[in-house]
Amino acid sequence: MKYLAVDVGGTSTRAVVTSEDGTCVGYGRAGSGNPTSSGTANAVAAIVEATRNAMAQAGSAPADIAVGLVGIAGANAETGQWLRVEVAKAGVPERLTFEADLLVAYFSGSLAADGYAIVAGTGAAAIRVRGGQIETICDGLGWLLGDAGSGFWIGHRAVLAATSALDRRGPATLLADLFTSQLGIEQIVRRGPNGRGVALDQVVRAVYDLRPVELARFAPLVFEAAEHGDDVALQIVADASDALAATLAAVVMPDIGGPLVLGGSILSQQPAIAQRVARALDASANVITVSDGLAGAAVLALRRGGVDVDAVVFDRVRASLATLR
Amino acid sequence: MKYLAVDVGGTSTRAVVTSEDGTCVGYGRAGSGNPTSSGTANAVAAIVEATRNAMAQAGSAPADIAVGLVGIAGANAETGQWLRVEVAKAGVPERLTFEADLLVAYFSGSLAADGYAIVAGTGAAAIRVRGGQIETICDGLGWLLGDAGSGFWIGHRAVLAATSALDRRGPATLLADLFTSQLGIEQIVRRGPNGRGVALDQVVRAVYDLRPVELARFAPLVFEAAEHGDDVALQIVADASDALAATLAAVVMPDIGGPLVLGGSILSQQPAIAQRVARALDASANVITVSDGLAGAAVLALRRGGVDVDAVVFDRVRASLATLR
Repeated sequence: MKYLAVDVGGTSTRAVVTSEDGTCVGYGRAGSGNPTSSGTANAVAAIVEATRNAMAQAGSAPADIAVGLVGIAGANAETGQWLRVEVAKAGVPERLTFEADLLVAYFSGSLAADGYAIVAGTGAAAIRVRGGQIETICDGLGWLLGDAGSGFWIGHRAVLAATSALDRRGPATLLADLFTSQLGIEQIVRRGPNGRGVALDQVVRAVYDLRPVELARFAPLVFEAAEHGDDVALQIVADASDALAATLAAVVMPDIGGPLVLGGSILSQQPAIAQRVARALDASANVITVSDGLAGAAVLALRRGGVDVDAVVFDRVRASLATLR
Repeated sequence: MKYLAVDVGGTSTRAVVTSEDGTCVGYGRAGSGNPTSSGTANAVAAIVEATRNAMAQAGSAPADIAVGLVGIAGANAETGQWLRVEVAKAGVPERLTFEADLLVAYFSGSLAADGYAIVAGTGAAAIRVRGGQIETICDGLGWLLGDAGSGFWIGHRAVLAATSALDRRGPATLLADLFTSQLGIEQIVRRGPNGRGVALDQVVRAVYDLRPVELARFAPLVFEAAEHGDDVALQIVADASDALAATLAAVVMPDIGGPLVLGGSILSQQPAIAQRVARALDASANVITVSDGLAGAAVLALRRGGVDVDAVVFDRVRASLATLR
């Protein structure tokens, strides 16, 4: 028998087929599948496409799959049941269970029954894990209410800093140049008939043509400007670090010292932010950075199928998965 | 002949019919008509409804109207032409011209050819007026990009402060109690199956059911909490004041000392914010607060019709309008 694991993300969705000993034998990818930011139809399509690609590489048929497990934002019994029906219509194995994306991220980094995970990609949230389950969560409230320190949050601040500089309300910043340049807008000093700068008018139209969550694409400009010593960008990075540290601190309990799993593009690609966030725990805590939650989804799929996932099996999952990517 | 003036706002739309001597003889109201936040169809419907109500009270027919002038956000030749066609279809006088909402707000407070206006209602923006025209504008970039210090901006911060307190990421604040109470949500301490507090989950669903700009409805909670000395609320008020002062400062030129017209619910109802904002100009500047732009729209309609609007006519417009409201 084989085991199917899917990790649904805001940027991409990944699936893997694993043997009983933890060897990953088929890997597949698809686009964004976050049901909140991309819609539920897209989520189903992404799960189905990534699964088919992984099953094709593994040479597996639906009947070969003993257990399938999908890690997805906002997973609970209700969304799970709904998604199960939709995904089954598309010919994917029906024995799918659903888990929170944060829990599969945690188990991508650690097998410990108790610990913490914090993920900052397009969104941001932290969990405390006890007995292998999420005991509490902080943030993950979406772009309008939270996701403090996330890619959206940083990208939104980049755009606010750039536009307020162009609007002469805020301090000059390299972000204004990087932002207009990325949008392909020339910084003309001329004013339009409404009394506003022509470039700023173009920026406003370009931004409102995006869905708000797409502002996450401007987060890399902040890191670029910060590398050049731009004060505004450095402040955004510091504020994001503080926000993520506060989110983690809100789930920490004295009786659980770690481990701490860091995930998502912001925490896996920005070591300075990761270090600041990890200081919310004791210096002795084991800190593991993961690129996504796929290995953890595989761990939970194997366990649901009755496989005893020990350190040897866990290492095999991660090593064989790395060769397939 | 009569003169029609309409002032289109994010919360309500107002129309007035004026005689040649400046006496207001018919007044009408309708709902939100801001084309950005409410949609263009709503804008047209609000202009038509407010106009019909005002013309009915005045006993005027479309043929009686020499000139009509509409103050509306983002007005320019293009939106003007489009709106003119749509409004004409609904049987409203075709001789409508369109002006920026900020310019009619300015002329509601002053007849001076040069000066400043800053309006903070649902949105926020400042203008410098020279020779009776807008020379430059700052902010007014909408909820996602600017409107710093506006009702939306303050309401959004109220909601962020309340949710981060409920989420234990941010400091405790009276705003959490006022906010959940306004939403009719009980602050239950129990956690749901996803590890999040039940009350916070309900708050998140309630907020995402709103259009973002509707968060402006929570701005009054900040002023209520600030009156009780809540530190978080006092900081929001201070930040809003600073943001609005920066917006005004960005349009000030040394050769124009004033007057300064303050408009919109935030500046007309919050004297502490208004005083802080006015400090962006010399203490000697004449500061006038207006409730909306309707009197200014009437001034500009009369002028377009060739009427010489002097101080006597201006006072008559404002006094007779006050009796009709």
